[in-house]
Amino acid sequence: MDRVTALQNQLLNHLAAEAETIGKISPLNLYHPIEYTLNMGGKRLRPLMVLLANELFGGKAEDVMNGALAIEIFHNFTLLHDDIMDKAEVRRNKPAVHKQYNENIAILSGDAMSIMAYRYLLKTKAAKLPEIISLFTETAIEVCEGQQYDMDFEERQDVSVEEYLKMIRLKTAVLLACSFKMGALAANASEHDAENIYQFGINLGLAFQLQDDLLDVYADPEKFGKRIGGDIVANKKTFLLITALKRANEYEKTQLNDWLQKSYFDEPAKIAAVKAIYESTGVREICEAAIKTYYDKALFSLTNIEVEPTKKQNLLFLAKSIMGREH
Amino acid sequence: MDRVTALQNQLLNHLAAEAETIGKISPLNLYHPIEYTLNMGGKRLRPLMVLLANELFGGKAEDVMNGALAIEIFHNFTLLHDDIMDKAEVRRNKPAVHKQYNENIAILSGDAMSIMAYRYLLKTKAAKLPEIISLFTETAIEVCEGQQYDMDFEERQDVSVEEYLKMIRLKTAVLLACSFKMGALAANASEHDAENIYQFGINLGLAFQLQDDLLDVYADPEKFGKRIGGDIVANKKTFLLITALKRANEYEKTQLNDWLQKSYFDEPAKIAAVKAIYESTGVREICEAAIKTYYDKALFSLTNIEVEPTKKQNLLFLAKSIMGREH
Repeated sequence: MDRVTALQNQLLNHLAAEAETIGKISPLNLYHPIEYTLNMGGKRLRPLMVLLANELFGGKAEDVMNGALAIEIFHNFTLLHDDIMDKAEVRRNKPAVHKQYNENIAILSGDAMSIMAYRYLLKTKAAKLPEIISLFTETAIEVCEGQQYDMDFEERQDVSVEEYLKMIRLKTAVLLACSFKMGALAANASEHDAENIYQFGINLGLAFQLQDDLLDVYADPEKFGKRIGGDIVANKKTFLLITALKRANEYEKTQLNDWLQKSYFDEPAKIAAVKAIYESTGVREICEAAIKTYYDKALFSLTNIEVEPTKKQNLLFLAKSIMGREH
Repeated sequence: MDRVTALQNQLLNHLAAEAETIGKISPLNLYHPIEYTLNMGGKRLRPLMVLLANELFGGKAEDVMNGALAIEIFHNFTLLHDDIMDKAEVRRNKPAVHKQYNENIAILSGDAMSIMAYRYLLKTKAAKLPEIISLFTETAIEVCEGQQYDMDFEERQDVSVEEYLKMIRLKTAVLLACSFKMGALAANASEHDAENIYQFGINLGLAFQLQDDLLDVYADPEKFGKRIGGDIVANKKTFLLITALKRANEYEKTQLNDWLQKSYFDEPAKIAAVKAIYESTGVREICEAAIKTYYDKALFSLTNIEVEPTKKQNLLFLAKSIMGREH
């Protein structure tokens, strides 16, 4: 899809130029870490979603580019602060900001980024800018809620599937949905279409996160960037673990809880044992079915958008690409 | 000034009601610390400035109350994150949020507060709301810059008076100025008047911060809430220390630097010794003169506002009250 690539390049150029400008502002200890963060790379999916949704409704990339940057800056702010909270030392093969600089600088640079997101948002050319700012604000609060639920769940043993789905909706899906809707609103899409593209984002986000949970265990190690089984080793409460705990018989439940409680263990042994319980409880198939359900819902919302179907090809390509279905 | 007290009470009621509502939202680990923070007390000067400026230009408190709350929530967010960065364990005689809860909760609750400030801002009824949002955003970024300069200065021995003044302008004065200007804009004040009330806030803020530096050393211990000489003990780079280092002769400079480098010392001895150098270098008088200059500038800007002088009494009362000149 040449158009997607073209928009992506336009976006990357803007982002690189802005990052360079930001990195030169004083005080450097505030702004250089922001440049560092923005230059860490990543797929830049969210701002691309803004641009593609905007184009679907006839908008121009130049008009909404600042809104797209706002989303990317906000997203990078959340990663920066999440890394402090998770004590994650590495992000995209580089030292996390709190390791490269220090924790105080990481807190404050993140704070500045969340405000700078508004600065970019305010530069967006759109008649519906007030609505866009409200959408962004409510979404940003939801993302904070999602992160808090995620931290809360790490301390709890009784998280339900419903609670987990609510958490990933807040932590991941709403920002994708907001990105699409922002692009749509900036191009003056109807309320009906704006709502449908929002639901497209929500369901795509849920499908994406569940697939992420699945890939941690079942990915092809050659294609998967991260180590297989990382979530299992870390006792991460994923869809798989929560569903397995719910479906396990007494014997499996005891085994699973034993592994969860061990402080010292052989990692491959733990991964193999937990995987065996995932097999016997059938959670792989349940997760795959859930992914399909959300992905189909996403496609249904896309169908509902009252725009000529051929124009939707770029968004469909993006959706397939996110779900790893295009290659 | 009955009217000031009446507005203050109206404000306190709104704030208490909002804090209570916020404290009940899930996830409680995100929202309860926000309620805790908002209930910590304080003089609520900034939101009062919004209301008073608004009333000066004929606005109604109800219309701008949400903007006033936005400023207070933002200000409390900065205190919350500053306490993490400064490792300050106590705020207004209560455990700081990162001690009462934990550091991760403090980071995330602060993040949510900075976004919630926008939620309240967006509820403000004002034709000039886009301008108000821009003003708030640019101010918030400046406050982050001020905090970074403050942290940078703690590591530096060569901070100039000009740099110090720039830092306190960013860290303290601009938010006061923004509060006044927000109130003015919400009441559709002219650009001329909005700029003058902004300068009133900047100069009042500078005078206030310099007075704070002075009171740390020269306050009446019975009236001063904090321990006298705390800045001296902590080597805080105040206007007094920076000016003393600049004006000291070689002998005084050596003495001052000796005290600054000591890790173990008798606190009263250090306070007495540094105070003696402040006396001999005349920095008390220089600081008092600077305070008078900024305070007079503030009053001049107030005079410039094209509103009937009698209507300015409330703002004048507030200014005097802040500077401790009314009692």
